[in-house]
Amino acid sequence: MYPFTDIKKESIASLGESGLIRALRRWLGKSSPRTPFGIGDDCAVLPTQTGRGLLTVDPVIYGEHFDDTVSPRSAGAKLFKRNLSDIAAMGGTPRAAVVALAFERRVKIEWLSEFYRGLAENSRNYNVPLVGGDVAQLPTGIVATLTLFGESTGRRILTRVGAKPGDAIYVTGTLGGSRRRHHWSFSPRLHEGAWLAQQNEVRSMMDVSDGLAKDIHALVPAKACPALIAEWIPVSRDALHASRTSGRPALAHALSDGEDYELLFTLAKSASASSFESRWRQAFPRLKLSKVGQIVSSSAFQKESNRFVDLNTYRGFEHLVESKSPVARSRSAPTAKKSQAGKKA
Amino acid sequence: MYPFTDIKKESIASLGESGLIRALRRWLGKSSPRTPFGIGDDCAVLPTQTGRGLLTVDPVIYGEHFDDTVSPRSAGAKLFKRNLSDIAAMGGTPRAAVVALAFERRVKIEWLSEFYRGLAENSRNYNVPLVGGDVAQLPTGIVATLTLFGESTGRRILTRVGAKPGDAIYVTGTLGGSRRRHHWSFSPRLHEGAWLAQQNEVRSMMDVSDGLAKDIHALVPAKACPALIAEWIPVSRDALHASRTSGRPALAHALSDGEDYELLFTLAKSASASSFESRWRQAFPRLKLSKVGQIVSSSAFQKESNRFVDLNTYRGFEHLVESKSPVARSRSAPTAKKSQAGKKA
Repeated sequence: MYPFTDIKKESIASLGESGLIRALRRWLGKSSPRTPFGIGDDCAVLPTQTGRGLLTVDPVIYGEHFDDTVSPRSAGAKLFKRNLSDIAAMGGTPRAAVVALAFERRVKIEWLSEFYRGLAENSRNYNVPLVGGDVAQLPTGIVATLTLFGESTGRRILTRVGAKPGDAIYVTGTLGGSRRRHHWSFSPRLHEGAWLAQQNEVRSMMDVSDGLAKDIHALVPAKACPALIAEWIPVSRDALHASRTSGRPALAHALSDGEDYELLFTLAKSASASSFESRWRQAFPRLKLSKVGQIVSSSAFQKESNRFVDLNTYRGFEHLVESKSPVARSRSAPTAKKSQAGKKA
Repeated sequence: MYPFTDIKKESIASLGESGLIRALRRWLGKSSPRTPFGIGDDCAVLPTQTGRGLLTVDPVIYGEHFDDTVSPRSAGAKLFKRNLSDIAAMGGTPRAAVVALAFERRVKIEWLSEFYRGLAENSRNYNVPLVGGDVAQLPTGIVATLTLFGESTGRRILTRVGAKPGDAIYVTGTLGGSRRRHHWSFSPRLHEGAWLAQQNEVRSMMDVSDGLAKDIHALVPAKACPALIAEWIPVSRDALHASRTSGRPALAHALSDGEDYELLFTLAKSASASSFESRWRQAFPRLKLSKVGQIVSSSAFQKESNRFVDLNTYRGFEHLVESKSPVARSRSAPTAKKSQAGKKA
């Protein structure tokens, strides 16, 4: 949907400030608890927590993460879910969200209401109240920024640090071709992340947002390398589909398309892989789990490097340095790469 | 400073993604703790907390809250401080911040480094680590959104709800003329807010961001009115200065300029005002405290309405409905009103 209109009565400019706030509350419905636990005070008061607190923030931007071909409900849903995926990546439980929306006055009421319904649906589905936020005027465009507060589910938070040479590398689900549908339809791996954080033999974890080939480096300690076996990479049907159009191998799509929102983690060398995999299958019988390789020392990697995936071939997208004008990019349908405009700082 | 450049080596486009992340870490220095308590993982792990959690979010936007006449350091400082003021308004203590930055590739490295230094300085001054964030590309402009996590300082959180007819209305500091300097130079009232939350006779509180005349309504319960006495309003020197230029009464500036970032609160009818005021003077000898009026029942207000400030005369700025083009507005120096582009949702 094209988000803007020059017909004033169809734009948020016609609502006035208090009218807009009332409308937002109505669109959110029960997703926003009563003040002070929801919208309406200087801060939101968070639910009582028992675990360690977690905080993450990610935006969706018109012309970067979505465009006119995307339903506003999908854009709102994605904003919520990409943040949920970050909480999942630590093994945490999401507790509350705040959203800061900046948009020009020409935004359609209809667009905004659908966007908020996309937020509200996910707020209900994942039981994460939208407790507050801010709306501000922007000279042109739309930027929606969601911050998610969460907490550790059990005793342990799984970070990106902890893998050692000899540890196995695993990934959930299948990879690649996300732009076809998965980057809108994915389910953040919250249950799986929480379960993995409870398995002591799991050493480190993250979610796959920029593609396995790029993201895996974040789990690899100094003087080590990720030794990935091409045949073990779980290539998605959508990656096969993308391959037919692009002419590139499906493996290339699986490794570098990004926006998979799957979990990538390492299992301690000392652990029994078969016992771990069997417990996984009991807990999550319907979600594929794949061992994709191993962390090895740099010297060991050099000796047998021809056995492993050459990750230099599949370098991820370099954010913020692309030569094409972002405005020009925004006029075509968003691709997975376009949607990767963000980078954790 | 004009934030953009077409000379590539001076723009963030020349840094590349990993170069930019390294630069951000360098600019933040000790303001960002080591991962997982700082930048570098899927979420930031928050410091251990003992109180009730608080969450607030506010942006600064190029062309709305700042423009080319403003130093990037001031813009970064304001982003941090306007969020701190929201924590102060609940009597809370700020604990950690995350910042989501969206900007076009033409942003100058120099501009961004100064903006981050503005954030880092306030992070150190207020002992609030910058624990994470996100950088993303925007078709045009700059939007910086900061989310602040805090916790209750003592047992009590002061919300906007709780005032009753008969309660006195107080405000800290002086009001009006903020656009001259105060909206950049203000100090968030964190100590004062925390102290006020410990005084049981204080019933409700907020910060003054849109002007007393508009904000006071948020503290007034149903079937009651704010009875403000004109002579009691603490008019700032900057309001007097603004009055000489605008030709409007200084009182009008004090009531409606906004961006005062002072605390507005109500004291229970049953409390001893003189004892409370004396304790205030002991705790904060240098910060003016003014009783500005009383919450009264609607019927009592009608009977003596000519004694009180007619707040309809001083209605605040209607956000998001202004008829002038926001782009046109951005070309002149920002005024307090322009800076009020945001509204708590």
